[in-house]
Amino acid sequence: MILVLAESALELVPKEIWNHPAVLADARRRGKRPGEILLDRARHHPAMRLLADAKRRGRPDIVHQVLLAFQYSLLAKRGLGKAYIHTRDDYVIAVSPEARVPKNYNNFVALIEQLFALGKVPPKGEPLMELYRKDLATLLQELGGVWAVFHESGARKPLSQMGSELLKSVVVVGGFPHGDFQNKWVVEKAAVVYSLGEESLDAAQVICKAVTAAEVAAGLL
Amino acid sequence: MILVLAESALELVPKEIWNHPAVLADARRRGKRPGEILLDRARHHPAMRLLADAKRRGRPDIVHQVLLAFQYSLLAKRGLGKAYIHTRDDYVIAVSPEARVPKNYNNFVALIEQLFALGKVPPKGEPLMELYRKDLATLLQELGGVWAVFHESGARKPLSQMGSELLKSVVVVGGFPHGDFQNKWVVEKAAVVYSLGEESLDAAQVICKAVTAAEVAAGLL
Repeated sequence: MILVLAESALELVPKEIWNHPAVLADARRRGKRPGEILLDRARHHPAMRLLADAKRRGRPDIVHQVLLAFQYSLLAKRGLGKAYIHTRDDYVIAVSPEARVPKNYNNFVALIEQLFALGKVPPKGEPLMELYRKDLATLLQELGGVWAVFHESGARKPLSQMGSELLKSVVVVGGFPHGDFQNKWVVEKAAVVYSLGEESLDAAQVICKAVTAAEVAAGLL
Repeated sequence: MILVLAESALELVPKEIWNHPAVLADARRRGKRPGEILLDRARHHPAMRLLADAKRRGRPDIVHQVLLAFQYSLLAKRGLGKAYIHTRDDYVIAVSPEARVPKNYNNFVALIEQLFALGKVPPKGEPLMELYRKDLATLLQELGGVWAVFHESGARKPLSQMGSELLKSVVVVGGFPHGDFQNKWVVEKAAVVYSLGEESLDAAQVICKAVTAAEVAAGLL
């Protein structure tokens, strides 16, 4: 399974709020400049009122949850999974199947900040994560131009019937907390549109189910 | 499904290291006393060398991951799940099925610190989490005295065959990062011992699989 977490709410603090007290205090405490730290609603909430589309921004925890669910799965451990994080600003993080993502959130945030500063982590040797500028259409084209997507508009289908398809698919899941894809074509042009259950689930829940189904199909569970 | 996360690596900073610089600095930064903050390997690593059994302590992130996986599942949303966190010091946290656990790790830590200070959160109204002194044997007895446990000694069985049992069981999973249950009877006296895959998985992964299997059995997926 190739996972693409799309339009993820992951970005460095944008210039408009570098001088906001909530941002300055956080940056100072961590010995970094405002433009070097990740935007995080839990820390920068008062500053985020000044940002457009704020409801869908500043949630590195979503990316963290998803990567923990994916990278520590049997699927990833057996080399049957690979994850790409696409961000709302059109960066892509390619995650090595071998990457042991920090389980502690604050350590994860520091790692991603280093990634934005250096373009890859660790700085030397085989990179575990690499950062590129790339839009979603280009990424999906490079991955073969055919993908499945989880979206509430999809037809419900028993999870057990999705596994073998998911195992060999490029699977797109939204990495934002609210609303819908801004790239509406992601759903319209998808080869398959899946939905799970009768209500919207968060991204990590969707990935836990999708990965489990693929693991069952691969005979791992 | 009733989930019991057992011997979880969750505790306040113990007295022996209240005066360690790593602890004092963290407490001061957060405006709390050393005995009011959670022990966290990511922050207190240098101090933890002084603690017995340190390898199995100071991992609130495990509890956080597990509660996110459990509380935001369809199972919990439909009222078919209830979680209890048992700690290595024999505290028990009873989590309301309605509790929306903070998704941000630092907010979660602050909430659990408030829980240790007050015995319940929120302080007023219907509690979403309550804290008691209770050992694992008493908790399991009160929950009916019959339980299943996930443990590497268990027989492998396809996940799809576990679901309907899991759905109506008290399910015990270890909440510690390394090693085995100290309460060895938890495995010896279990009604069923399950294992998943061929290698050890972290607690959140096990719960993701177990919950998914139960959701399928309940017709939710």
